[in-house]
Amino acid sequence: MKKINTSPISGMQELLPAAQAGFDNLKKKISDVYRRHGYLHIETPVIDRCEILLAKAGGDTEKQIYKVVKTAEAADGADQAMRFDHTVPLARYVVEHENELAFPFKVTQIGRNFRGERAQKGRFREFYQCDVDVIGRGSLPIYYDSDVIATLLDAFGTFGLKTPVLARINNRKIVSGLIKEYNLDLKTKEILGIIDHAEKIAPEKVVEALNELGIGSDRVEKILQFVEIKGSREEVVRRLNDLGVEDDTFEEGVRELDMVMGLLEKAGFGKNISADMKIVRGLDYYTGTVFEFNLPEYPGIGSVCGGGRYENLASYFTEQKLPGVGGSIGLTRLFYVLKENNLIDISTEKPIDYAIIPVTDAEIEYAEKVAQDLRAEGSSAMVVASGKKFGDKMKYAGNLAAKGIVIGESEVQSNVYLVKEFK
Amino acid sequence: MKKINTSPISGMQELLPAAQAGFDNLKKKISDVYRRHGYLHIETPVIDRCEILLAKAGGDTEKQIYKVVKTAEAADGADQAMRFDHTVPLARYVVEHENELAFPFKVTQIGRNFRGERAQKGRFREFYQCDVDVIGRGSLPIYYDSDVIATLLDAFGTFGLKTPVLARINNRKIVSGLIKEYNLDLKTKEILGIIDHAEKIAPEKVVEALNELGIGSDRVEKILQFVEIKGSREEVVRRLNDLGVEDDTFEEGVRELDMVMGLLEKAGFGKNISADMKIVRGLDYYTGTVFEFNLPEYPGIGSVCGGGRYENLASYFTEQKLPGVGGSIGLTRLFYVLKENNLIDISTEKPIDYAIIPVTDAEIEYAEKVAQDLRAEGSSAMVVASGKKFGDKMKYAGNLAAKGIVIGESEVQSNVYLVKEFK
Repeated sequence: MKKINTSPISGMQELLPAAQAGFDNLKKKISDVYRRHGYLHIETPVIDRCEILLAKAGGDTEKQIYKVVKTAEAADGADQAMRFDHTVPLARYVVEHENELAFPFKVTQIGRNFRGERAQKGRFREFYQCDVDVIGRGSLPIYYDSDVIATLLDAFGTFGLKTPVLARINNRKIVSGLIKEYNLDLKTKEILGIIDHAEKIAPEKVVEALNELGIGSDRVEKILQFVEIKGSREEVVRRLNDLGVEDDTFEEGVRELDMVMGLLEKAGFGKNISADMKIVRGLDYYTGTVFEFNLPEYPGIGSVCGGGRYENLASYFTEQKLPGVGGSIGLTRLFYVLKENNLIDISTEKPIDYAIIPVTDAEIEYAEKVAQDLRAEGSSAMVVASGKKFGDKMKYAGNLAAKGIVIGESEVQSNVYLVKEFK
Repeated sequence: MKKINTSPISGMQELLPAAQAGFDNLKKKISDVYRRHGYLHIETPVIDRCEILLAKAGGDTEKQIYKVVKTAEAADGADQAMRFDHTVPLARYVVEHENELAFPFKVTQIGRNFRGERAQKGRFREFYQCDVDVIGRGSLPIYYDSDVIATLLDAFGTFGLKTPVLARINNRKIVSGLIKEYNLDLKTKEILGIIDHAEKIAPEKVVEALNELGIGSDRVEKILQFVEIKGSREEVVRRLNDLGVEDDTFEEGVRELDMVMGLLEKAGFGKNISADMKIVRGLDYYTGTVFEFNLPEYPGIGSVCGGGRYENLASYFTEQKLPGVGGSIGLTRLFYVLKENNLIDISTEKPIDYAIIPVTDAEIEYAEKVAQDLRAEGSSAMVVASGKKFGDKMKYAGNLAAKGIVIGESEVQSNVYLVKEFK
């Protein structure tokens, strides 16, 4: 026999049943919180047209996407690929079904997405994302920005995390307005890029990068002061107003940030939120509120959730303006880092409630009846009919089940049996 | 703007939220029954090595498989593909993790599989399969054959189907023994093929096909009589014994069929099962028990579930003998046909329990508090902050929610509000 490598492809999560149960548990908690916040569940196909998936994408996405081809076909002609996130299929979905949906459309997708990234520890090529989005038609009130963040914070609140979680919130209009005020529009991309990386590189490198833009030391200093602004709503709004920026976009951004954080404070999330000018969430796409969740005591873990407001969900597919706000928990990576850092208790409970152990095959029928009764009550119950020696059956039962019920001749006769707790 | 086609690729299921809720409901019922029967949930990667996925496959599977390539690569070199069923990844999983699993390994996988079939009504290229399998190491008692069938029947029992379901059961050893007895070993493949298609073609075509084998009219006649045998356990076992076949394999098959059906009768499934010699489930793979579920009042729908016993799960990956028995519900197709034929009630309940409608933005904070209280009780509650006119808000709320709570100035003042049932 030729020896075949049976490990999964690197970058693919594959869990043993006990860890899978922990993963499923987290997923269920998330989906239940999403449901309680009134998000409707949909599923979009994993495979979609390249024309759709790559309508906007470029750069890394285009390089990382998995195209699909039937064996007989050539890759050159591949016009189908696997979705790399939930947002692009959602855009197609909303445009396709626009007349059958009620807006604002509160929607959740929970499923696997696929990117052919270079494999490395803690990065996945197949990964679950748990998204919430609210899509408006024409306009969308700012309330939904706070609703999305509150929903995601509520989800994290159900995990039993052993460390606090912090939602760091910003509004892209603030930095856009600042850039306009300082007449730096031509350097927008570069400045956002530097801010976006400001946390990952040394402070002197940030200064260096800004100096290299040739925008003058005065403006470099002002930007440096700006990106350091963070803290409570009140404090940040005050410090931003103190900058004396008179740009309308800037002011609108501060007002929106104030409103979103104010709503979250009133809803009891004051301790879990912080305004932070370092949060920009990449260069494109987001146009208003942006946020990122971190575990402050574990800075190495980085972002565990993120999202924001976008002006237009589907500008590539329709002329109808569809503003939205959304966020996503990257569950596969999150589960991996929480487990690695021992930040959640993976249940050590046995996966099955009852094992019914017939002493000989003659008791199987009765054992099955006992199991049926337990299942009818909602318990999980399995009959151990392994054909092994009795001691081996008991060992197997004790490994998998919380409780055991041995069925011998006398139990069948008397119709009475004992329930034994396995340690 | 270039007009882009926003429909999903044909053969991909894409549901509106209400239908999705019906689908999710069915999936949850299935997974809950599987759990209660003690099957452990695992997930295998969607993408796997071609070496694994195509180790055994040939024919249609090889033609229908989706290979995946990163954009830069050529299809020729593609060595990864999307799984087309759960069984092949399960074989890899069991071999890879053999030392960490307890055998018999009762396992379930519920997820999407992918086949690039020619698209046609009611056939899907992405489809959910809900599998249960029991894998033994070295040997596996016949009890598990009945356990798999009972589990699947229990799952169908939760759907609220408006028509009965029938599990048609056979054992491949019976027909194998018969073929040996009649010295037709060289024609095994052809005979099984004819039996496998016997229901889909006219009776005279079956006779014709058998005559074409040149096996003599006597044996044709005997085979024809044999394939017509079906009915209750007692009747079928009697009629099979009456054939006077003395082959050991045949006798073992009859004995196993008798045992599996006997266990199912004792477990209360007598009305839902029938022995049927026409069931062979294709040519390869299955070696003992085989079964197929049908809706007898809707013969056009065909099989809604199937499975059987296999001698060796992973003969391509390991020399360890891993006998198993399993079955699968093709949920995407099942949901489609049940809906098309109006055989299940898709809930007409509103997807959200409560809509909280602030009269103006000033009441949003209070509305959010009301929503939070309802969510804490497990209800789903959303605040309608749509910025629309009040009448439009009410219409939107009534579309989505079962109950509405209007929050105006006086409600905030008095801290009292009314709950209105939407019709």
